[in-house]
Amino acid sequence: MATQDELKKAAGIEAAKLVQDGMTVGLGTGSTVRFFVDELGRRVQEEGLKFTGVTTSVRTKEQAEGYGITIVDVDDVDRIDVTVDGADEVDDRFDGIKGGGAALLWEKIVATNSDKIVWIVDESKVVSTIGKFPLPVEVIPFGAGQVVKLFEKKGYKPVLRLDAEGEPVRTDEKNFVVDLHLERIDDPQGLAEDLIHTVGVVEHGLFLNMVDTVIVGDENGPRVLTNPNK
Amino acid sequence: MATQDELKKAAGIEAAKLVQDGMTVGLGTGSTVRFFVDELGRRVQEEGLKFTGVTTSVRTKEQAEGYGITIVDVDDVDRIDVTVDGADEVDDRFDGIKGGGAALLWEKIVATNSDKIVWIVDESKVVSTIGKFPLPVEVIPFGAGQVVKLFEKKGYKPVLRLDAEGEPVRTDEKNFVVDLHLERIDDPQGLAEDLIHTVGVVEHGLFLNMVDTVIVGDENGPRVLTNPNK
Repeated sequence: MATQDELKKAAGIEAAKLVQDGMTVGLGTGSTVRFFVDELGRRVQEEGLKFTGVTTSVRTKEQAEGYGITIVDVDDVDRIDVTVDGADEVDDRFDGIKGGGAALLWEKIVATNSDKIVWIVDESKVVSTIGKFPLPVEVIPFGAGQVVKLFEKKGYKPVLRLDAEGEPVRTDEKNFVVDLHLERIDDPQGLAEDLIHTVGVVEHGLFLNMVDTVIVGDENGPRVLTNPNK
Repeated sequence: MATQDELKKAAGIEAAKLVQDGMTVGLGTGSTVRFFVDELGRRVQEEGLKFTGVTTSVRTKEQAEGYGITIVDVDDVDRIDVTVDGADEVDDRFDGIKGGGAALLWEKIVATNSDKIVWIVDESKVVSTIGKFPLPVEVIPFGAGQVVKLFEKKGYKPVLRLDAEGEPVRTDEKNFVVDLHLERIDDPQGLAEDLIHTVGVVEHGLFLNMVDTVIVGDENGPRVLTNPNK
């Protein structure tokens, strides 16, 4: 039986096949994406693959540059051909949750500027209803306590994410992350609307009908799911 | 004939009458609010007025603390009794534009947590249709160039706000400000919806039907306008 890491790696290698010479490629964040970037690094070094990367976090930027991959700013490209990223959950409507790694804002900005979005996940991330994974919401530090109180009143079960020292986790943009422990989200669109209208919320981890393809690491080899609504 | 500063000062002094012992008061930002805080400072020092302030910018915090006014964080209060702030434009539906001073985000967060909102303006800020004043939009630096390009495509006539050295202005939260030169905004609600759904936008300067009272500095003395829909 394959380990979870082996399944993630298989999905990452499968996704790397989508990258061709001359492309502009969005590089996501997370443990599965790490295998994807490793495989791209291998192809750069062994096969002479040439492409330009746009990264969604400081971590991924450092990993990619370690392989000699050219990284440019999202503002320096016209469009991104394809972005490959992980996800914390995805359901069969291709709605998903991202942000467990606190990089959801940059990830969503890069995704918004991409012609094609591919998620790579292991089987454990594929669910019938999203929400078991706590939904990350990026909030402005100023007044964050009031936002948490408001979420409590609404029954969203918010928890301010803390680091090992007990200090609030800071995103790459120095914001806070509040995780909503909803258990299940029956109306993702309605929740997204409520969150985005909350003053102090910068962005949330709901990625609704944005992804084109999901590659699932599976015991029988990578499974490719195509969103019929895109 | 009164100067613009005299009209602003008169509105500021009138608004200060709303502040009573024991209140929690939101202190806005800008040239008119400066007169309001000066008057509060005078009352603190001459009349022994005691209240707690919540500020919307580093500038106002420094001014208020200079008068010995106790300033607390917005997260340390239950509710704010009244917030007094300026505005760049306000129309007869009590819709307005704020953010000329780049403090719109903190201003909106404080306003959201206030039981009553009062704006103090001179006559030049009262308009029939808002939009002549460029609408400030606070955006995340990462990908800001893509947001500007998108706004250009939509005909929003965006201009990234620069400082005297030609560098992007940074808000108190270190974000950028993009000013939309729309000339007139016929559908503020529709525009607000579009902006808040744009990934990369943190907040915008449209304050729609939020204000309870507008105090206008007028040649014949301060004029108090009350929002009938609040």
